[in-house]
Order: sequence, then structure tokens, then C-alpha cells
Amino acid sequence: MLKIAVCQLPLNIETPDENLRLAESAIRQAAASGAELVVLPELTNSGYVFRSLEEVKERATTLDGPVIAKWSELAREFGITIVGGLAINHDETFFNTSVIIDESGLRGWYKKVHFWNDEPDFFIPGSDEPLVIDTKFGRLATMVCYDLEFTEWVRLPFLADAVILALPTNWPYGGLPTEPTPMESVRVQAAASQNRMVVAAADRVGQERGVDWSSASIIADADGVIRAISDRTKLSEVQILLADVEVPTDRKIGPRNDLRTDRRPELYGKVLNS
Amino acid sequence: MLKIAVCQLPLNIETPDENLRLAESAIRQAAASGAELVVLPELTNSGYVFRSLEEVKERATTLDGPVIAKWSELAREFGITIVGGLAINHDETFFNTSVIIDESGLRGWYKKVHFWNDEPDFFIPGSDEPLVIDTKFGRLATMVCYDLEFTEWVRLPFLADAVILALPTNWPYGGLPTEPTPMESVRVQAAASQNRMVVAAADRVGQERGVDWSSASIIADADGVIRAISDRTKLSEVQILLADVEVPTDRKIGPRNDLRTDRRPELYGKVLNS
Repeated sequence: MLKIAVCQLPLNIETPDENLRLAESAIRQAAASGAELVVLPELTNSGYVFRSLEEVKERATTLDGPVIAKWSELAREFGITIVGGLAINHDETFFNTSVIIDESGLRGWYKKVHFWNDEPDFFIPGSDEPLVIDTKFGRLATMVCYDLEFTEWVRLPFLADAVILALPTNWPYGGLPTEPTPMESVRVQAAASQNRMVVAAADRVGQERGVDWSSASIIADADGVIRAISDRTKLSEVQILLADVEVPTDRKIGPRNDLRTDRRPELYGKVLNS
Repeated sequence: MLKIAVCQLPLNIETPDENLRLAESAIRQAAASGAELVVLPELTNSGYVFRSLEEVKERATTLDGPVIAKWSELAREFGITIVGGLAINHDETFFNTSVIIDESGLRGWYKKVHFWNDEPDFFIPGSDEPLVIDTKFGRLATMVCYDLEFTEWVRLPFLADAVILALPTNWPYGGLPTEPTPMESVRVQAAASQNRMVVAAADRVGQERGVDWSSASIIADADGVIRAISDRTKLSEVQILLADVEVPTDRKIGPRNDLRTDRRPELYGKVLNS
């Protein structure tokens, strides 16, 4: 069993220092609860609703900067793995990223590929596949937010034998019903179930410059079953979702069925057409 | 708005004639309620839990046989479109199919591609893409049951500009929690939402030779929102789900976002690897 913590945080673009303080406090609280994998939202260091590239530049951090150094220190202190979203300045190019950090420091970083709304005005999209890293608890993948809606994209870590997907997100609330389950969480459940992969999504809570966040954080097991989900009566405060989840060792879903070998990729050619 | 009826039927392999009677009665009731599109379960003419190929042969019908003739007559009588699952004998080869029938008769038939459990013992898998047919209410696609779990497969009608997917299914109940939403219905919601496509799935109800059916019928709109879902307090009787659903005219999901053009197919190559 793997204990996962998903930290749903009230980040704010106006208070980047406070964002980092909130993240550190959440990581410490998650570790104190025994979490081995801690997932933080998208763009934890900056907030999301930028008005200018200048605001991105002011808030972005570097791979050798203080945020990754601090998270590496916390990962070492507690023996945990941290996955979180960061605005990264890499040689004066700005990326919306997810980083994987463990006791040995930064294990890798992923640049968001599918962009939502105004992101093209502020970031350069990635063109590398979802990051997949071997950890002591299994093969771990990450991508960011809107990437998950592209089912082909989720297939890549599945095909690379990842068994856990950590998803930093900032899901703006779009007006759909949140009962019985918010649609963002539904898509996470389906991704987990159809890929036989644990999926842990850390969303935001609260409001920023007129944007309401969905507060749709969720931990779904490899059957897609909800193991922890945001409490929708607490829509302005920090929530740390905790779940003990079995990490799958294969893609079998029945005596004669396996999601990997039941695929018929020779028939999927048109998926590459635009 | 399109009025859809999904007919969740207590089919039984022991009583093929009764299955067809149930289907006709459900079609008549759906049409009387104003349905324009009526969806029936997988293998409506035969039931599912075969013990021998002989049982398949006894129950399968032909493309020019009485079942399709009867459904064509009903489609003409009421001016409706019917999508249903049938065991088909085509030149002594047996297929698990979905047929699309309207006032002009049989518009097309689709052979299930992804096989569940013992189906390879009884049927030959198809290798044609999901069937896509233009109707008076929009471009309609069909596939069968387990096909839906292969997200690449659902992308094919999406890429072919289908806006409605009718899914005959026989989902055996596998023991997962059915609250807040059965996992089979969750996957339908996600398929609808991620492809901006109305999805109407007709499941079975009751038990057959020791197999419990999931009773997870659902009509999800193009946002993935549940517009009608099986009443889980009625798990042995016919249920006809009815919903008025808006048929989408594009894949736009925000001022700057479109699920079709936001794809980056040049990066999806590995999806074709087995």
C-alpha cells in the first residue's frame, strides 16, 4: 500500500511567498500523516491568472533556484517523493511544469504540452512525453491539468508501464454540476480505470482575479474508485486528502482480459491524423 | 434538442423470443414518449452467457432475417432511429454487432473489435472502425461495450466528426462500488466530455446464469453531464431512460480551446505501439 497526500491549496497570484509557505506547510503536514507521495497543484509558486509576461517572469523559479532546493530538502528530511507544478524560467524561456523530487533531489521535470486559455501568451508548450520515473513505490508519471483530457496523452505513461500518475492542476470552475462528482474528478476516475493506474490530482481552491477554482482534487485507485475526494463544504481552506492505495502490478482486469494486450493498435492509425 | 431513449432490458439467454418481445415493447414505449433515437443493449436477440457455439448458432439472426426486418418496420412506423446489439450470422460466421436502423431500413452494422472474457470462443472480432452514419439529427456512431474502454477507439468517431455515440452494452457487475456513480457510467461520462459527444449506453439488468448485470445505463450530454441514469432501486425490471439532449455542433470548450484543434497528434506516435 502507498500512502498518497494530495494538497489542495488556496494559492494566489498576488502572494507568491505565501504560496510557497502554504506548500511547505502542506508538505510537512502530509509527511507527518505518513504520506510517501505528496502532490501539489499546478503553478504552485506563481498562481495562474497572469496579466502580463512580466508577472510570469517575476514569479518563475529556476531548476537550481530556492523552491526546488527547499522541496528537495523536505523530501530528504521526510524520505518522501514530491510532485508539484511550478512556473520555471529555463534560460529565459518560461514553462508550465511538473517536477518530481525525492530524497536524491530533482528527478525530472515535465513541460505542459496541451495549453488552456491564455497559457500560450505566457508559456512555451513542451513537446516531450509525460515524465516517467522509477521510484521505490513503483513507476511514477506526471503531466499537467488539461493534458489529462487528451486520452492519447494518458496512454503514453500507460504504454511506458507507469502505475501511478500524479497530476498538478488548476481547474477553473466552468459551471457544470459538481454533483454527484465534479466532471474533472470523473475524468480522473476514467483515466485511472481505463489505464489501470492510480491517479492523484491536486487542484486549487478559492478564487483568483475573478476565476473560481473547481476544488476537484481526487485520489482514484487503479479501478477508478474514489479513495479520497475534496470536501465541497470547505471551499476556501487548505485540504490535504490522504489515501492508502494499492499500486497495481499489471493491467489485468479479468481472467481473460488485460487492458494492455486487449488493445488492437494496428487499428488505431487514424488517431495520429489531426 | 434530440430526445433519446435508452432501454435497459432484463434479457435472458434461455428465452430469445421473449428478448425480442421485450425489445419491441420497449421501442414502442420509447417512441410513444417521443424518442427519436432508441438504444438497445448488446446481443439483444441472444443474451450473453453462452455455453457453446451451438447456442450462438441457434440464437443468431441474419442481416436479411426477421429481427432487422421487424426493427426496420418499427423505425418506419414511428420515424425513429434504432441502435441495438445483435448476434449476427453472416455466411456462417458469427459476430457480436451493433446495427443502425432508420426509416430506410438497415443503415449499417458494426462488428465488436475488443472482446471481453469468453467472447473469442463464440464470435469473430471485427477489424472495421466504429460505424459512423449521417442521420437527420446529426452524425451518429456506434461501437459495443468493452470497445469504449479503449480511448483510442472512441477517438475514431470523434475524428470522423460524429456527435452522438450509441453504445449497446452488457456490463457484467464486477464488484466495484456503484455509488456515487457506477464505474461503467463514469467511463461514459468521461468519453462524452473528452470527445464532446453525446453518449447513450444501454446496459442490461437482472441476472443470467450466475452473472449479475451492472444496470449502468446512462445518457451523458456532450459536457459529460448525466442527463438520465438507471434507477438502482429497480434492478430486475425494464427501464426506459429518456432525455432531451443538445447535439453539439463543434468541439469548442472555451474561448480559446477546441478539443479537436488542441490535440497534438504529431506527439502521439507511440500510441500505435503495442
